[in-house]
Amino acid sequence: MTNFDAGLLADRTPLPSGLDSRLLRHFTFLIEVDKLKTVLRASPLAAADRRENDAEHSWHLALMVLVLAEHADEPIDVGHTIKLVVVHDLVEIYAGDTPIYDTEAGHDQQDREEAAADRLFGLLPDDSGRELRALWDEFEARSTPEARFAKAVDRLQPLLLNWMAKGGTWRTPGVTADDVRSRKAVIGEASATLWEAARHLIDEGERRGWASSRDR
Amino acid sequence: MTNFDAGLLADRTPLPSGLDSRLLRHFTFLIEVDKLKTVLRASPLAAADRRENDAEHSWHLALMVLVLAEHADEPIDVGHTIKLVVVHDLVEIYAGDTPIYDTEAGHDQQDREEAAADRLFGLLPDDSGRELRALWDEFEARSTPEARFAKAVDRLQPLLLNWMAKGGTWRTPGVTADDVRSRKAVIGEASATLWEAARHLIDEGERRGWASSRDR
Repeated sequence: MTNFDAGLLADRTPLPSGLDSRLLRHFTFLIEVDKLKTVLRASPLAAADRRENDAEHSWHLALMVLVLAEHADEPIDVGHTIKLVVVHDLVEIYAGDTPIYDTEAGHDQQDREEAAADRLFGLLPDDSGRELRALWDEFEARSTPEARFAKAVDRLQPLLLNWMAKGGTWRTPGVTADDVRSRKAVIGEASATLWEAARHLIDEGERRGWASSRDR
Repeated sequence: MTNFDAGLLADRTPLPSGLDSRLLRHFTFLIEVDKLKTVLRASPLAAADRRENDAEHSWHLALMVLVLAEHADEPIDVGHTIKLVVVHDLVEIYAGDTPIYDTEAGHDQQDREEAAADRLFGLLPDDSGRELRALWDEFEARSTPEARFAKAVDRLQPLLLNWMAKGGTWRTPGVTADDVRSRKAVIGEASATLWEAARHLIDEGERRGWASSRDR
């Protein structure tokens, strides 16, 4: 299900006439993306008793890339990697968040997100839209060291939040510690150090009963 | 007033023993910064009926830098500029947000923020902490084209939100449209195009009665 029905945010308080037409499209897009602050993820915050939203999550990833880049197995361009995480969840404005342990919603995720990307990046002038779409495609394809590191951090961040919550989404019914390991293994494609640390947190979480050991 | 009393978030669910000591400091810092998601700004969201938090704001700036960089008067390194906005509000975790129209709280802002920076960046290994501190210092000093553009976007973003709210913080008692112009003029240090657009929004807001014309 895609959420195209609500209309553009910018239409609620139309920008004044007299703005340069290219800048008008930039502003229309930059107002529309405010919606990312309302897309809730499954992860609980560490600092407050509520779920995280996509905009906060994306910022957290950007800072994690900056701090953790030294642990990448391949050299990465840090600024470029941060661009990838800044745009990586934008399509969820229309496609919604697909929780990592929701295998049902995962089935049509790609179709929903492609349609959302066409709609959202289409708000921009063609060249600007192509630039952001290329960043999103790169992230999704994990075809560069930067994209692999961005994806690794995208998987590591909720793991830290789940640790802080003594389980968090690890406690999703039907999910086992082995499921968590299998969803997080992609971290190892970018950083042996971070994957070792992630496994250590999962192992310890399982030992403490924060992630289920059944079916093992 | 600085908020140092609550203790470190990471102490609430201590990380397990056996993590590399350097990575332990990285993770401790990256958990602590979750608090930025709870620092509320004065600005209202466009997409929901609540105030914006610093983490969402920082993400929004990062995306604005990416989209609006072509309007910079001087060439900028986009990746570096995004790093600046990602870290620019971190000190508010301890120092709190100082609303732009609150001249009272502005008096000791610099002292509070310096103390907060010492505390927060001190959680990191020395070299990592120095790197982030240098980014924050660069942003504050506006000594580079990147820092000037980052600051311009930091002033432009709430202006778009205030436009969407048909006034927002422009309606703060005692604040006039001229006050808004004077606080936003720094945009012109980085981009004549964006400053012209910002003035157009403020002028039109004043014409519609969303910002006060008294004292003019």
